[in-house]
Amino acid sequence: MPHSELARLLRPVAARSGAAGSGADQGDVRAADVGSGPDDREVLEDRFATAVFSTLTEPGDTDAGALVGALGAARALVGLVERWPPERLAAEVAEADPGAAAVLAPRIADAIDRWTPRLSLAGATRSLESAARVGAVLLTRSHELWPAGFGALGDGAPLALWVRGDAGAMRTLGRSLALVGARAATGYGEHVAMEAAAGLSDRGITVVSGGAYGIDGAAHRAALASDHPTVAFLAGGVDRLYPAGHTDLLTRIAQRGLLVAELPCGSSPTKWRFLLRNRLIAAASAATVVVEAGRRSGSLNTAGHAAAIGRPLGAVPGPVTSPASAGCHRLLREFDAACVTDAAEMAELAGFDDPVSPGSSRGEAARRVALDGVAVDGHPVRVLDALVRTRGRPAHVVASSSGLSVRDVTATLAELELEGRVAEHADGWVKV
Amino acid sequence: MPHSELARLLRPVAARSGAAGSGADQGDVRAADVGSGPDDREVLEDRFATAVFSTLTEPGDTDAGALVGALGAARALVGLVERWPPERLAAEVAEADPGAAAVLAPRIADAIDRWTPRLSLAGATRSLESAARVGAVLLTRSHELWPAGFGALGDGAPLALWVRGDAGAMRTLGRSLALVGARAATGYGEHVAMEAAAGLSDRGITVVSGGAYGIDGAAHRAALASDHPTVAFLAGGVDRLYPAGHTDLLTRIAQRGLLVAELPCGSSPTKWRFLLRNRLIAAASAATVVVEAGRRSGSLNTAGHAAAIGRPLGAVPGPVTSPASAGCHRLLREFDAACVTDAAEMAELAGFDDPVSPGSSRGEAARRVALDGVAVDGHPVRVLDALVRTRGRPAHVVASSSGLSVRDVTATLAELELEGRVAEHADGWVKV
Repeated sequence: MPHSELARLLRPVAARSGAAGSGADQGDVRAADVGSGPDDREVLEDRFATAVFSTLTEPGDTDAGALVGALGAARALVGLVERWPPERLAAEVAEADPGAAAVLAPRIADAIDRWTPRLSLAGATRSLESAARVGAVLLTRSHELWPAGFGALGDGAPLALWVRGDAGAMRTLGRSLALVGARAATGYGEHVAMEAAAGLSDRGITVVSGGAYGIDGAAHRAALASDHPTVAFLAGGVDRLYPAGHTDLLTRIAQRGLLVAELPCGSSPTKWRFLLRNRLIAAASAATVVVEAGRRSGSLNTAGHAAAIGRPLGAVPGPVTSPASAGCHRLLREFDAACVTDAAEMAELAGFDDPVSPGSSRGEAARRVALDGVAVDGHPVRVLDALVRTRGRPAHVVASSSGLSVRDVTATLAELELEGRVAEHADGWVKV
Repeated sequence: MPHSELARLLRPVAARSGAAGSGADQGDVRAADVGSGPDDREVLEDRFATAVFSTLTEPGDTDAGALVGALGAARALVGLVERWPPERLAAEVAEADPGAAAVLAPRIADAIDRWTPRLSLAGATRSLESAARVGAVLLTRSHELWPAGFGALGDGAPLALWVRGDAGAMRTLGRSLALVGARAATGYGEHVAMEAAAGLSDRGITVVSGGAYGIDGAAHRAALASDHPTVAFLAGGVDRLYPAGHTDLLTRIAQRGLLVAELPCGSSPTKWRFLLRNRLIAAASAATVVVEAGRRSGSLNTAGHAAAIGRPLGAVPGPVTSPASAGCHRLLREFDAACVTDAAEMAELAGFDDPVSPGSSRGEAARRVALDGVAVDGHPVRVLDALVRTRGRPAHVVASSSGLSVRDVTATLAELELEGRVAEHADGWVKV
């Protein structure tokens, strides 16, 4: 399948892109058994053009998002390949989407200057070949598996996603939670990450993370041990398993879950790409939980993305004596993150019903136990304070001792007797 | 001084209370060298009547608070001693304070039934003698050392306080913070309590607590090791050092700080009195911090009082694997407590300027570092991502690699060169 699929992707637009004069790049292109109707052709054109366009941009390029949103990837790519002047591209955008044009017009020349140096059909083709080799599938924004949560990213959403593994796992992102944290995790942090990931998976909640050492890895591992898929968003291409020490882990995720990247295959991860990859983790998930993070952990960046798009943000506390938890405590203290201590609380944070232990009633009960010691009727406490087990006390003595009226003492003793907590002996009332 | 002071307190009202027919109780009463002006007489009368009235009630008796507030302790006590019918007492209240009467009138009969069985001049006298023996001083609501924070308790505020130690330490409650927590504390909790109490004391903030085992004791001990007083609110009389294992600690607090109780001397602590004592800790302090608390720790009751009267509430996080921190995590999670990890953050919570490390600017800086990884201009990150140390790269290669225009790359390289982070070699730009 890889090669015929590659050809299927390439054929329609490759023929057109020849107009740009890069004929030498087309040697590998072969006609393949695709449907020949105009709809099929348009879909394939769009998919290929999107794949190529995604090789021109860095993640988070809102100009690219706006341009492709207004014109479609194929038309936008034609404009670049044919070296249209900025005014012509802006005019086409204005016709298609006046709102987008207002934002783009003053920026389009600079954007073209960014994108054009990267135009290379050979590079795009190599990337597609790599994708085909590892069985990666291309998803574009209109695909039914496109994560609904990416809507929050606006024009900054990816143009495309490459997914490797069980693409159907994308559907489970509707019930997912991001577990992230420091690479320099402690045994405590990894333990908590694994407990949480196992508990979430058991609840049918997909654990999303970044495949890194430390917390990410612990979360993925525990999720893999369950029957529920886990999804790792990578900062480079899905053919580049990074970090190298997680090759086995990431391979297993590709087999039993899903690897996802917005960078085309062949792309290496950079600091910038890690920072922008984090927005995908936050946007794909219903909530983000930072399990363990030092004061400057990169996972705080993911937390920042979640907060920026209004997703629930949780942090797991740890010992205040542990620098590895200082970032979590900052999230609790300064960024209004919710304090979450187990999978049930994380599920509640994300707004998922919790079939294991209903959160709301539990929370309510806890609230009552914790803080209503005073609001509750104090008579039983005071009457019991005034009784002993060893000797009977008449009601009037209990009244004086408890500071209650004889009437209230008598009524309260009757209640407590019904509950089996006091009894009346010959010499008076006793605690039982 | 003890006995003459006792007599000084007793004389004026003891003479009057003889009218109630409890002549046998007056054997100990002796005239003493008090000033004979009407003002002195009124003050002494009020102090003695308040002391006696406080032996009739249990803590939190808002009816007593309202009655004494409306009539004064002396007149209220006369009403009780002379066995006025409820209507007469209510009529006097209506004349003095119609608002109080509206609340009290339907409750006064029951209140009289509560208080009357405890009327005993002998008991009150014994309590005063005990107070004199340990050098305890009586403060009433009008005293200049009365804690301003008690205003939040309304009619539920104590009628009187007995203080043992340096009464002037009451003044420091204006800059105080309650450190409370479980008796069943862990080494972690006690360590954090001691660090916090030492840091607060160093900042001139008075550590308030309850003198109990565990967190309370650790906090008091660390505060005693500083030059700043610490204040312990007890659930029984200040002559009853409870728990027995803290006799030495509480004695030292009486010597170098202050023991405070609303119960008269001779009173033993009961469960009810502990619950109500907690409201004094919360109300006396500018903020309450729970250092370590299990899910059902009594210290959560103190937290509830603080929240109920609108005082800032903080909780120190701990390992989620430690049941001893579960109560703190509940406060963070369900009761909107602030996450505090050290003395500086506690001082900030209470609204005290922190001469050691100014909180606000620190918080702002932290905010920027933590979450703005994306909002900041990404060009330097992307240009640095595209450079190596070992080989020069020309600007146009950096442009293609970083996905930026040559113009932006050139400008960014110039900035980075000024910062000494890149250098131009013969073969291009390198990271330094």
